[in-house]
Amino acid sequence: MIEHIKEEVLKEIKPSKEEMENLKRKSNAIIGKIWEIIKRNNFPVLEVLLVGSSARNTNLKNDYDIDIFLLFDRSVNEETLEDIGIKIGIETISELNGTYSINYASHPYVNGIIDGYEVDIVPCYKIEFGERIISAVDRTPLHHKFLCNRLNEELCDEVRVLKAFLRSLGLYGSDVKTKGFSGYLCELLILHYGSFENLLKDAQNWKLGKTIILKDIFELYSREKINLKRFDDPLVVYDPVDLNRNVASPLSKENFCKFIFYAREFLKNPSLEFFKDYGKKIEEKLEDRPHGYRLILKIRREDVVDDILYPQMEKLQKSINKAITKNEFVILSSKCFADDKFCYLYWEFLVEKLPKVILREGPPVFDRERVENFLKKYDKVFIKGCKVCAYAERKYSHVVELFKDIINGKFVNISIPKHVNPKNGEIIELDLDKTYS
Amino acid sequence: MIEHIKEEVLKEIKPSKEEMENLKRKSNAIIGKIWEIIKRNNFPVLEVLLVGSSARNTNLKNDYDIDIFLLFDRSVNEETLEDIGIKIGIETISELNGTYSINYASHPYVNGIIDGYEVDIVPCYKIEFGERIISAVDRTPLHHKFLCNRLNEELCDEVRVLKAFLRSLGLYGSDVKTKGFSGYLCELLILHYGSFENLLKDAQNWKLGKTIILKDIFELYSREKINLKRFDDPLVVYDPVDLNRNVASPLSKENFCKFIFYAREFLKNPSLEFFKDYGKKIEEKLEDRPHGYRLILKIRREDVVDDILYPQMEKLQKSINKAITKNEFVILSSKCFADDKFCYLYWEFLVEKLPKVILREGPPVFDRERVENFLKKYDKVFIKGCKVCAYAERKYSHVVELFKDIINGKFVNISIPKHVNPKNGEIIELDLDKTYS
Repeated sequence: MIEHIKEEVLKEIKPSKEEMENLKRKSNAIIGKIWEIIKRNNFPVLEVLLVGSSARNTNLKNDYDIDIFLLFDRSVNEETLEDIGIKIGIETISELNGTYSINYASHPYVNGIIDGYEVDIVPCYKIEFGERIISAVDRTPLHHKFLCNRLNEELCDEVRVLKAFLRSLGLYGSDVKTKGFSGYLCELLILHYGSFENLLKDAQNWKLGKTIILKDIFELYSREKINLKRFDDPLVVYDPVDLNRNVASPLSKENFCKFIFYAREFLKNPSLEFFKDYGKKIEEKLEDRPHGYRLILKIRREDVVDDILYPQMEKLQKSINKAITKNEFVILSSKCFADDKFCYLYWEFLVEKLPKVILREGPPVFDRERVENFLKKYDKVFIKGCKVCAYAERKYSHVVELFKDIINGKFVNISIPKHVNPKNGEIIELDLDKTYS
Repeated sequence: MIEHIKEEVLKEIKPSKEEMENLKRKSNAIIGKIWEIIKRNNFPVLEVLLVGSSARNTNLKNDYDIDIFLLFDRSVNEETLEDIGIKIGIETISELNGTYSINYASHPYVNGIIDGYEVDIVPCYKIEFGERIISAVDRTPLHHKFLCNRLNEELCDEVRVLKAFLRSLGLYGSDVKTKGFSGYLCELLILHYGSFENLLKDAQNWKLGKTIILKDIFELYSREKINLKRFDDPLVVYDPVDLNRNVASPLSKENFCKFIFYAREFLKNPSLEFFKDYGKKIEEKLEDRPHGYRLILKIRREDVVDDILYPQMEKLQKSINKAITKNEFVILSSKCFADDKFCYLYWEFLVEKLPKVILREGPPVFDRERVENFLKKYDKVFIKGCKVCAYAERKYSHVVELFKDIINGKFVNISIPKHVNPKNGEIIELDLDKTYS
């Protein structure tokens, strides 16, 4: 059953032989060009390495990423490394008639498009297993070398099935927007469990803090008695290249739980459906229901990347949620997303309107000091059960009033992140088609 | 300050000398008539005793109650006692040109009106201090004898002030409707504390389970090492006549707390206002505010006394409250009351209308068995945090729909008391002036 499904999935998502050959040919041409430039300029590059899923045969169809790393000796200083890296990148892409831009990770690198392929040319230091890294990208060549020696054709296909499953559920990707499983994590998990099915079977019983130590690490660990670092993440997968790093650290608790849940659902009733935009289908099913009052706060997007924007949107929404709850409105759901032009913070409320009256529950009558403080604050006081209670007037009787104060900057208890400022935002009442700004 | 207030209060509430003399004269006339009837018929009555607050000089103005107890020897059987008691009662009131009815407490007794005075003529067994009682009313003559020997004019006035204070707050009366302080309890408290002011001062620091042992009992207790019975009531005042009885047992926790609270309020700022329908004034102040959605369930009153009706109304309301809360409507306040014709169950809700959608929070994803049960119940399931959640449809989207099902008998989880049946009741929406039945 599952075998059959895997076959079907692979038909859909495994790149064709031709696609892979084209990719290989293109990669070789670029690497050839890079070596040409290195020799022409006598640059101190030790190695040029094709890395990433396309190099390891674990990529999905229509994934045209070519990642090339330039390995330098530790003796080269960082400035030189960056300079040479950028020079090689720019010259390579230019000479191959591509277009390029300079991106910034731990240091700048060149990103370009050549004949429809997205090419990254990244300089790094060459280090050996066990050596300390200098910059974060220095691990990548080691990741590649570690996996290349261990993944065979069969395992690569299992990785692809896993990636397709996760992508369909919206759990594929370790960026801050997705908070899911990185490609490298997928590869390590398949390496550890041997197959997609074994992984899911085990995942069914995962608990928070589930820790996975690869066989190679385990052997090293038991031989040398290393004290493994502890992580407070939902899933811990030690990086075989750097034991101080948890490969699964970007995975959120919710996504960890989703994976467990859908692993069970799939195994209970295996079906190709799970690989076909399953996450979106669930969303649609969930949305096909009566709704509470829905509202969107639309804020013009500043020129920052998703990795910066999303945590800030989430932070702002969390802060607004606190204010909403404090004012006794009940949130049914909330989420945020962004397109090129705007940030959208979305809410669904149980009700939008509450009466002006608010019932405040105070301390028990016996706690004389706290009762006295309560009496200082409130006027319409009475005893209910053993507690002092009071009626007061609610500040916001309609949730839109609260949002209006937020966009007008009158609401003081909201922490405004640097790049997502609700001031001059727009409030959209979804079912009423009303807009305030 | 407080002395002056007490004087003012007494001017208002202490019966005039003339009033007391008239009462005395009337009581003597009735007792004379009773003895005449006893002798005429040769009834085995040992004693005819005027009891109650008017006999003890602790009554309030315009309190025209005359309580007369007929004391029988233990050798008389209960049937005879009841027969003779009723005969004496009826004959006495008839010969004095009054009107009478027969009431039932622990046994039947005659209640009548003579010249505007309300007269109770109650048969009971004569017992001595420490003897076992036969019926509940047998204690009353002993209560009277105990207090008569100990209360002087000054203490009697303190009792009156306390009663006026409690009456003004709605805390006076040990019936099931009031759940407050009985007259006898007031007298014991003043006896124990010596004055109204001392009582309030101590009450400020009372805690749940406050226990008061009168001096006489304490002496008895320490001399004979009696094991005093324990009570689980907010206030415990041992009955000097029967140590197995807590005189304060009818006092509810809420009223106990109210007394503590208003004792403090009065002492902080002593004023005559506290003696002038203070409870009602607080009510009015509390009601002068914006309201939520208000609704009354009006049910025809059956022919039962308050003492039976009120606990049943409260029971029904409690049961309905559970149903309301289960359906996620928020109750701001609820109370019940009755007049001659109807029972009224009143509610104020935060909101009356909720969207059709309901958000159900299930178990954490790790608890596989409970998750499976949750999945059997719900269809639109998703993961939020670590929990399985679901959207479902709310049964009652307007609280009136729920009440309609109650009066139509379609709501199964309501426990219907014997004498308060919401079937065929009427729903009144207060601010909308709408009625459903």
